[in-house]
Amino acid sequence: MPKTAISPSRAENYPEWYQQVVKAADLAETSDVRGCMVIKPWGYALWENIQRRLDTRFKETGHENAYFPLFIPMSFLEKEAEHVEGFAKECAVVTHHRLEPDGAGGLRPAPSAKLEEPLIVRPTSETIIGATFARWVQSYRDLPILINQWANVVRWELRTRMFLRTTEFLWQEGHTVHATRAEAEEETRKMLEVYADFAENAMAMPVICGEKTAGERFPGAVSTYSIEAMMQDRKALQAGTSHFLGQNFAHAQEIKFQSQSGDIEYAWTTSWGVSTRLIGGLIMTHADDDGLIAPPKLAPAHAVILPIYKSDEERAAVLAYCQALKSELEQQHYDGEAVRVRLDDRDLRGGEKKWQWVKRGVPLRIEVGPRDVAGDSTFVGRRDSDGKGAATPRAELVAQIGQTLDSIQQALFDRARRARDEASVVIDTLADFEAFFAEGQPGGLAYCHFTEGPEMEAKCKELKVTPRCVPLQPLLGDDGPGKCLFSGAPSQRRAVFARSY
Amino acid sequence: MPKTAISPSRAENYPEWYQQVVKAADLAETSDVRGCMVIKPWGYALWENIQRRLDTRFKETGHENAYFPLFIPMSFLEKEAEHVEGFAKECAVVTHHRLEPDGAGGLRPAPSAKLEEPLIVRPTSETIIGATFARWVQSYRDLPILINQWANVVRWELRTRMFLRTTEFLWQEGHTVHATRAEAEEETRKMLEVYADFAENAMAMPVICGEKTAGERFPGAVSTYSIEAMMQDRKALQAGTSHFLGQNFAHAQEIKFQSQSGDIEYAWTTSWGVSTRLIGGLIMTHADDDGLIAPPKLAPAHAVILPIYKSDEERAAVLAYCQALKSELEQQHYDGEAVRVRLDDRDLRGGEKKWQWVKRGVPLRIEVGPRDVAGDSTFVGRRDSDGKGAATPRAELVAQIGQTLDSIQQALFDRARRARDEASVVIDTLADFEAFFAEGQPGGLAYCHFTEGPEMEAKCKELKVTPRCVPLQPLLGDDGPGKCLFSGAPSQRRAVFARSY
Repeated sequence: MPKTAISPSRAENYPEWYQQVVKAADLAETSDVRGCMVIKPWGYALWENIQRRLDTRFKETGHENAYFPLFIPMSFLEKEAEHVEGFAKECAVVTHHRLEPDGAGGLRPAPSAKLEEPLIVRPTSETIIGATFARWVQSYRDLPILINQWANVVRWELRTRMFLRTTEFLWQEGHTVHATRAEAEEETRKMLEVYADFAENAMAMPVICGEKTAGERFPGAVSTYSIEAMMQDRKALQAGTSHFLGQNFAHAQEIKFQSQSGDIEYAWTTSWGVSTRLIGGLIMTHADDDGLIAPPKLAPAHAVILPIYKSDEERAAVLAYCQALKSELEQQHYDGEAVRVRLDDRDLRGGEKKWQWVKRGVPLRIEVGPRDVAGDSTFVGRRDSDGKGAATPRAELVAQIGQTLDSIQQALFDRARRARDEASVVIDTLADFEAFFAEGQPGGLAYCHFTEGPEMEAKCKELKVTPRCVPLQPLLGDDGPGKCLFSGAPSQRRAVFARSY
Repeated sequence: MPKTAISPSRAENYPEWYQQVVKAADLAETSDVRGCMVIKPWGYALWENIQRRLDTRFKETGHENAYFPLFIPMSFLEKEAEHVEGFAKECAVVTHHRLEPDGAGGLRPAPSAKLEEPLIVRPTSETIIGATFARWVQSYRDLPILINQWANVVRWELRTRMFLRTTEFLWQEGHTVHATRAEAEEETRKMLEVYADFAENAMAMPVICGEKTAGERFPGAVSTYSIEAMMQDRKALQAGTSHFLGQNFAHAQEIKFQSQSGDIEYAWTTSWGVSTRLIGGLIMTHADDDGLIAPPKLAPAHAVILPIYKSDEERAAVLAYCQALKSELEQQHYDGEAVRVRLDDRDLRGGEKKWQWVKRGVPLRIEVGPRDVAGDSTFVGRRDSDGKGAATPRAELVAQIGQTLDSIQQALFDRARRARDEASVVIDTLADFEAFFAEGQPGGLAYCHFTEGPEMEAKCKELKVTPRCVPLQPLLGDDGPGKCLFSGAPSQRRAVFARSY
C-alpha cells in the first residue's frame, strides 16, 4: 500500500481520515469550550472566500445585510409552538449578568444579578428578527423586506464534529417578508437556486435541489427545501436550506400590513441559510488521502511558489526569479479576481515544505530551482492529478494560469459528479432497498417512491437511512406515479434516500 | 430659527439630537433585548465599508483572520487578576443548556441541564485566544503570531446608547504574540498608527494618538494606547485602543517558547480593537441639524439620482436618462473603488424623497428633470455645503465625480480639524482648568501638566473630566517639563483632559 500523507486513509477509516485532514490542512482545531472549535487562518480564509461570493449573489438578488441581537428573550421562543419544540432542548441559556467571588478563591454567578427573564443565545433568529420586522412593516409599500445577516449561532449539540456539527457555528441567515404567498414561495425557490449555483460553480460540489419531507422540515416552516450533496463515503450532506414559513411566524410575531385595498393582512415570510458546515462538505467532496484539495474559486491561495536552492548564491538568484514570477502571476485574473499567490521562502527542508502545501490543498505548486531559472522555466504540480508535475515554461504558466485553474475547477466538479452518479440508483422493491443499505454495502443515493407514514419511518430507522429530499427536477427514475416502497400506497414522486451527516 | 430636518438641533439638545440622527438616517434602532440594538441596512453598510478598509490594512501589515469561541469558561477569567476585576462585573453568564416547560404554560432553564462550569459570553477574548496560542507556540520559529478576529462581544453595561455603548457590539480584536518586548511594543504602536490613519483618512475624523494614564488602562495591560477624537459637543471619544500586555497574559495562559538559545521563555503579547462605536464617532463628528453626513470613502452610496417628472412621457425620458447616467457614474472610480450610485425611482413626493437622502447623508444628490434631459445637464447638491446646489453638465459631473468626492472628504476633515483645534487649549493653572470646565462653559480639550494621584483624581471627578491620553507627539504645549496642575509636583509631559463618552 502506498504511503499517504493522511493516516488513516479514506478506505481505512473515513471519519478519522476526515478529522486528520482538518488537522493536516490547518483548517481548525478543538477549543477549550465543549463543542466549539477554533477556525484557524487557512480555514477562515476559505470561509471568507465563501462569504464574499455568497454575499455578492445575495446583493445581486436584492438583499441587504443587517444585524440583529445575539440574545433572544425566552418568551419569544414560546410564541411559535413547533419552533420552541425544535430549539428549546439544545440552547445556551443566559441567566445572570455578573460574576462575584465565591468565597473560595473562585467566581460564581452573582445571585443578586439574576435576570428577570432568561435570554437564550440565538440558535436561529426567526423570532427576534420577526419581532423587528413587525415594527418595519405597516403598509404593502414597505414590502418586500429582503434582509440577510452574517452571524454566529449556538445549538447545544450532544455529538459534535468539526465544521459539520459544532455548538457554535458561523452562518448567514436570510429573512424576508412578502405581501403574497406566491411571492414568498418564489423567494424560497430563488434562494435555493442561489445556493445550488454557488455549490456547483464555486465549490465544485454537485447538489440535488429538493423539498424536505414533512418529518424533516424546519421547526415552524410550511415547507423546507434543501440542497443535498453526496460525500465520498456515499453519505448525504444537507448543505443549505430555504424555508417557506407561510404566515406562521407572521402570526407569532404580529407581522401585519395594510394591503392596497385597505385590509389588514398577515405577511408571508421566508428564511434560508448556509453555514461553516459547507467547509466540511468541501473537504469530504474533494479531499484525498494526501489532504485537502481546495477548488480554485475558493482556495485561499491559487498557487504556491517553492524556491529550491543549495547555496547562498543560488538562493539569491532563485528568490529574485520567484518574486518576479509572483508579481507576474498576481497580475493575471481568474474568475474575476486577481490570482492569489504565496511564495514560501521559509528555511525548511524542501520535502516538508512541499507536503505542507499538498495537505493544505493549494491547486498549483510551482517549484523553481537554479536550472529552471537558467531555462526561464518552472516545474508545476496540479493538486487534482496524481502525476508528479511537469516542466512548464514561465511564459506559458503565466499566460495560461486562468485556464489551468479553470480546468482544475472543472475536473473536481466532474469527478465529484461522476462519483455521485455512480452511487445513485433507482430502487423499486423493498428487498432491493434493504440490500442496497445493508451493512457492509457501500450504499449511496436511492431514488424511491414513497409515502410518509409509520412503515417508512420504521424501515428508515432500522436501516439508519433518511429521505433527503424530493428532487424538484427528478434526476433519476422520472417515470411518473408509482407505489410506495414501504406501504404499497400510491405515490406521485420519488424521494432520495441516503445515510447522512 | 430656520427649520431643520432633525429636531431638536445640536444646540437645543445634543444627546437627543444624536438619537434622532441615528433614527432619521435609518442607521439603527433599539431592540427587544435590553441594551442591544438592531443595526439597520444603511448602518450596516457603513460598518461593512469600515470593515473592508480596516481588513485590508490589517492584511497589509501581515495579519490573518481567524475565529475563536463565543464562550469563555469562567475559570479562564480567574487566571488574570486585573482582567477578572475589569470584566466579571458586567458579563452575560450562561448557566444552562436546555429549556423545559415550567408547568404553567411557559419555559424555564432545565435544572437537569445546569452546566458544571458556567460560561461567559466573551467581553473580549484575551483569555480564550491566549489559551489557544499556548498550543500554537512551541519555538521562536512559531513567532510572531499575528491574528485578527471580527466578532460580536457582550458587556453588560448599565447605561447604553446606540453605537456608543451597547450590551452587544461588533468589533475586531487583534491578538499577537512576539518573542521580544521590543517587537510587541512596536506592534502595539504600529496598530495604533493603522487606526489613526484609518480614522483620519477614511473617516475624516482627526484623532490624537496617545498613551492612557494608569487609571485608564485596559484591565491586565502594561500600557494602553488610544486614538481620541473630539465630537461636536467638545467631548472626547475614545475611538480605538491598542494594548501592550507585556507577559501578563502569557503567564496567565502559559504562552511559552523555546528561544534560539534553547531557553524556555514567556512570550510577549498585544491586543487592539475598534468597534461599531466608530459609527457613533462618525455621526458626532460630521452630522448636522439635517442629519448624517457620510464621508465619501465610507458612504454606502456616493451619489443618489432623483428623477423629477410630472407626466408619464416625462417619466420615461427622465428615467432612461437617469439609468444611463447611473451606468456612466458607476464606471468611474473613487479611492480605488467603483463609484456607488443609487437611483431612487420610488413613487414618492420629490421633497420627501430628497430629504430622506439628505438625512441619510449621501454626499451627492443629483436631481434630473425634463429640462436637464433636454440640456444634457443635471442639478447637483453637495451634502457638506449649505448651498442649494448647482446646475452641472452631465459630462462634467461624470468626469469630475472622483475629484468632487475627494473635495467633500477633505472638506469634512478640515471642518472637524478646525473645530477640534478651536476647542484645544494649553492650561497651566488650576483656576483656568476649573474655569474651562465650569458648568455652562463649552469645554474642550485641555493640555495640562499632570501627575497621577489623589489630587488629580478628586479634581477630575469633581469636574466630570478624565485624562484622555498623553499624546505621543504633543500637538499643543510642547514646552518641556512643567508642574502638575493638581499637586504641583514636577511633570514631564502634558495629558489631554476632556469630558468624554
